Amino acid sequence: MTTDKAPRGHKISGENIKKGLVMVNTGDGKGKSTAAFGTALRAVGSGYKVAVVQFIKGQWKTGEGEAATQFGDKLKFFPMGEGFTWETQNFEQDVKKAAEAWRKCIELLHDDEHQLVILDEINYCMKYNFVDVKEVIKELKKKPPLKHVFLTGGGAPQALIDFADLVTEMKCIKHPYHQGIKAQQGIEF
Amino acid sequence: MTTDKAPRGHKISGENIKKGLVMVNTGDGKGKSTAAFGTALRAVGSGYKVAVVQFIKGQWKTGEGEAATQFGDKLKFFPMGEGFTWETQNFEQDVKKAAEAWRKCIELLHDDEHQLVILDEINYCMKYNFVDVKEVIKELKKKPPLKHVFLTGGGAPQALIDFADLVTEMKCIKHPYHQGIKAQQGIEF
Repeated sequence: MTTDKAPRGHKISGENIKKGLVMVNTGDGKGKSTAAFGTALRAVGSGYKVAVVQFIKGQWKTGEGEAATQFGDKLKFFPMGEGFTWETQNFEQDVKKAAEAWRKCIELLHDDEHQLVILDEINYCMKYNFVDVKEVIKELKKKPPLKHVFLTGGGAPQALIDFADLVTEMKCIKHPYHQGIKAQQGIEF
Repeated sequence: MTTDKAPRGHKISGENIKKGLVMVNTGDGKGKSTAAFGTALRAVGSGYKVAVVQFIKGQWKTGEGEAATQFGDKLKFFPMGEGFTWETQNFEQDVKKAAEAWRKCIELLHDDEHQLVILDEINYCMKYNFVDVKEVIKELKKKPPLKHVFLTGGGAPQALIDFADLVTEMKCIKHPYHQGIKAQQGIEF
């Protein structure tokens, strides 16, 4: 029964539509970037070339980055988060930094080299108005039809959720910090 | 400001507590297993040895499995889902199969070799009473204190949620199936 390949209750008729997906992981829970990273590994394992633009410094500069070196140019990281002033709240500088990162995204969204592009933590930048969601959706509409794009980070704007094909909210039900447990290196970061 | 390493509003005082985390990814959304897989890669990249017990056949037999071969014995997969009768609903046989998988879990939960053990899709088996959540919690209580365990799958029992350190609900906000779009190989599976 081929229908068993699809979750129950889903329309099967239209399932031969093939397209590059616009995927969003948002919410206050863990796993938004980590699931995107797992998807990147799955894609690389399937022969895709993947590019990751990191809007926030430090992300991936841990075990994932180390693991990713195994895959050479099949999995490329573009760390663009250097110089953001999350603490000092220099809005103009953050907008300037985000604009640089966004220019790299536009390049990757439209090339023919990468079949999956991950815009890691870009949702925060849209939330804080460092990047304009209208501009992001405009470029997503112009991407090659089979290119997959994953946008991660909390606070994804409703306009992006409305536009995306696949949206998952990672919801924090329970966090060890709440019990005063330190974030565990190698597991949580 | 070291406190900035922790999300706002979290108690910092107790954060020097180091312990192996019991982590749960549940919910109806995507990314439960994928985030656990990303965590496995992060752990391997940090020098951990990781074991994954697969309660449901087919999981990981895709891009991830291919990517994982890069890491040799640092990342071991134990596919135990063969022979489950999800369609034919032979409860006795499924309980028997789940018991075999669970015995492998017990072995891995208590060894000194693996610092992270992923029990992939075990939550479904507890939900369907193939595996007894009380038995699972009993063994989790006896594991080496620094060993991390990740339990994935929808329908995580409340008793497990109450016991776990970190619980994330992957909530499906929007799924391409709902628009009649086929699951995209290399990205979704």
